[in-house]
Amino acid sequence: MAGWRKAPLKTCRKGEPALRIDIDRIESDLAEIAKFGFNEEDRGIYRQGFTEADMAARAWMRDRFEELGMEHQLDGAGNVIGRYGPSDRPSVIIASHLDSVPAAGIFDGVLGVVAGLECVRAMKEAGHEPYYPIDVIGTSEEEGRFGGMLGAQALSGQLTREWLDSASDESGYSLKDAMRAAGLDPYDALHAYRRPESIRAFIEMHVEQGPVLDMERTTIGIVEGISGVFKWNVRLKGKADHAGTAPMNMRSDALMGMVDFAHEIQRIIDEEGTDKSRITIGHVALKPGFPHTVPGEADFTIVGRDLDEEIMRGLANACRRVLSSIARKHKLKFEYDEMSWLTPAICDRGIVDLIERKTKELGYSYKLMPSGAGHDVQFFCDYVKAGMFFVPSVKGVSHAPDEWTHWSDCEMGAQLLLECVAELSSKDAEVAATERELQH
Amino acid sequence: MAGWRKAPLKTCRKGEPALRIDIDRIESDLAEIAKFGFNEEDRGIYRQGFTEADMAARAWMRDRFEELGMEHQLDGAGNVIGRYGPSDRPSVIIASHLDSVPAAGIFDGVLGVVAGLECVRAMKEAGHEPYYPIDVIGTSEEEGRFGGMLGAQALSGQLTREWLDSASDESGYSLKDAMRAAGLDPYDALHAYRRPESIRAFIEMHVEQGPVLDMERTTIGIVEGISGVFKWNVRLKGKADHAGTAPMNMRSDALMGMVDFAHEIQRIIDEEGTDKSRITIGHVALKPGFPHTVPGEADFTIVGRDLDEEIMRGLANACRRVLSSIARKHKLKFEYDEMSWLTPAICDRGIVDLIERKTKELGYSYKLMPSGAGHDVQFFCDYVKAGMFFVPSVKGVSHAPDEWTHWSDCEMGAQLLLECVAELSSKDAEVAATERELQH
Repeated sequence: MAGWRKAPLKTCRKGEPALRIDIDRIESDLAEIAKFGFNEEDRGIYRQGFTEADMAARAWMRDRFEELGMEHQLDGAGNVIGRYGPSDRPSVIIASHLDSVPAAGIFDGVLGVVAGLECVRAMKEAGHEPYYPIDVIGTSEEEGRFGGMLGAQALSGQLTREWLDSASDESGYSLKDAMRAAGLDPYDALHAYRRPESIRAFIEMHVEQGPVLDMERTTIGIVEGISGVFKWNVRLKGKADHAGTAPMNMRSDALMGMVDFAHEIQRIIDEEGTDKSRITIGHVALKPGFPHTVPGEADFTIVGRDLDEEIMRGLANACRRVLSSIARKHKLKFEYDEMSWLTPAICDRGIVDLIERKTKELGYSYKLMPSGAGHDVQFFCDYVKAGMFFVPSVKGVSHAPDEWTHWSDCEMGAQLLLECVAELSSKDAEVAATERELQH
Repeated sequence: MAGWRKAPLKTCRKGEPALRIDIDRIESDLAEIAKFGFNEEDRGIYRQGFTEADMAARAWMRDRFEELGMEHQLDGAGNVIGRYGPSDRPSVIIASHLDSVPAAGIFDGVLGVVAGLECVRAMKEAGHEPYYPIDVIGTSEEEGRFGGMLGAQALSGQLTREWLDSASDESGYSLKDAMRAAGLDPYDALHAYRRPESIRAFIEMHVEQGPVLDMERTTIGIVEGISGVFKWNVRLKGKADHAGTAPMNMRSDALMGMVDFAHEIQRIIDEEGTDKSRITIGHVALKPGFPHTVPGEADFTIVGRDLDEEIMRGLANACRRVLSSIARKHKLKFEYDEMSWLTPAICDRGIVDLIERKTKELGYSYKLMPSGAGHDVQFFCDYVKAGMFFVPSVKGVSHAPDEWTHWSDCEMGAQLLLECVAELSSKDAEVAATERELQH
């Protein structure tokens, strides 16, 4: 970081912003946090929820809050929270997660927390005092080591004692034991709930983890909502035959039923879906699965997504109809279990509009888009004004050591976050917005 | 078997045959052999090659040969052989196997041996002395516990010392140890070779193990040859993406490449193949294989068959072309390994004609067909006059405890075998055949 200065912020904006983030500090913070859980061998980050590395990253973040003179707290769910501004008004929350999947990159989650910290630093530096306090939150256990998004669920009051009691990771290690080993009392997580009247707005900045922005060379992805998801386990049962003795026209080949269905996926989306629809077969298991045996059973998963629950229903119904008709054609038995149905989480229109307006003012390229992946924000959409935006992931890579986001994209994203939060935390935000509209 | 007599042989044949098999004795023999390796729990037969049950079945068969006053032998490969007739002339071999897959039915292999035994009994009973000797052989290890067809390979001189030294079963138990435990010297198997001048003809009767005869209510399937087989391991490599964040049109979904190929199989057969062609995908493995991840790699097998090697080449070339073009379309990398290429084994035209003529004389329904499965006969097709016929498998089931062949089909098959063998072992066979043709 020392020595030569980096080039100044390259935006299309006329004039100098009143508040200005410093990308060098963001880069430095990301490098520091990357040390927690870094693995020399694959150069990936291993900072799964409530591991030592995860708790060390939270302590590091607390120290930064302390340095800035912010009030801070590790809540009962392990969320690390720093507050800048007065404590008697509802807060503007900037949040993302500090935990990681195994073998992760350095941006996923952390970028949003570090950018929040930088927003506060930039404000302090400029002597800017927000009217509404700003809470920077590094949420806990977003990546679902224990099957949920503990930190965001606790903050948004969507955590149950029953789940706390039963959750465990893949190895069978219980959430409660993991929390106790991290120095937390698991049931304290039920105290972490932030009531709606205490939240003025919620905003999250995150890397896209998909290829769209990078492919289209677009800087900002303004998230309209988190797609709903359904997951089916499908079984097609036919008859396992000797692959030599069974003529092609006398088979009940379960794989060919799956194949016929897969072939219809694009048509189903064309007819029932939108450009935000996704249908994926990610897992297939054949029985008996021998090269010389016609598959007697094909078990596979269907994962469907859209931003609109009605459209999701249309996709699911079409999948069912198509599978039934294919099963009849191939003389197969068709069964499925709906393993989950998660409704879409729609971002607050006011926040979406604010992000869009600020992006335009900054002169950044942008697009409105759904988030196909889940994020902390989804738990807040239902009860407070919540929104989110993406910065590009190079080639869409995430959850891998070679995850990357260009520094200039990080810089522009953080600047956008700063401008949004400055307005959200200002007393005159609504007034200002109205005036602006009158001028147009 | 005692008490009421079964109904007499119901054939369309005019008059009474000079030689006549007794289905009661065949039924009784099958029941006796079924005791060796019978499992009470699943009611399946477990008589894998060189197990105690397998060797006990061979000893039982030897005792039957002894009872009939036949010369008998357990050759070095474990084939149990009984000879009826003079020893100084080439023999007519009736062979099939006595070993079984795990959880087998009672007919597979055994029926052909027991029918051979019954042919000899019927001849003895009628005081019929063959001019050429008849060898009834219960071959060893046809089901490939050790990866080959040991008995038939040894008899036909297609066994190598190298393979004997290296073969082992799935658990890693070596063929040599298994043979020694069964009281055999493994290298004696190399003495089992039957030179061509010692064989007048080879004939095998077997259950179809496929659905064709049963579906078409046809009694006899006259085998024109054993289909050749090629086996490919195919890898399509794309890009593993998050199933939510990767839009449908930005994916390199390896599964969809496999699906497109599978969809072309029928067209490939229509254009390049025959009604004897088979192409099967029996095994598929996706990587990473997670429901929420677009498959980055699809590994699958292609097993292709036809009775004509030129056609096999056409099918294989078409598979390669189609896979290449699909890989380009889906932005996938395409690789394959040809794991095996077994050429077809064509049955002797004279034997096929003899079986067809005898079937017609008996008034049985029949069809000419390939064998998609491998059989002992395939090792003899190249160097002696060898042929085979099937009797129906109910619903095509085999290699399962509920394998079944109607007793009347067993009876007609054995009667056909007897008539064929009587002619093949008679001095005047050629003369008789010529005379018959002149009469038509």
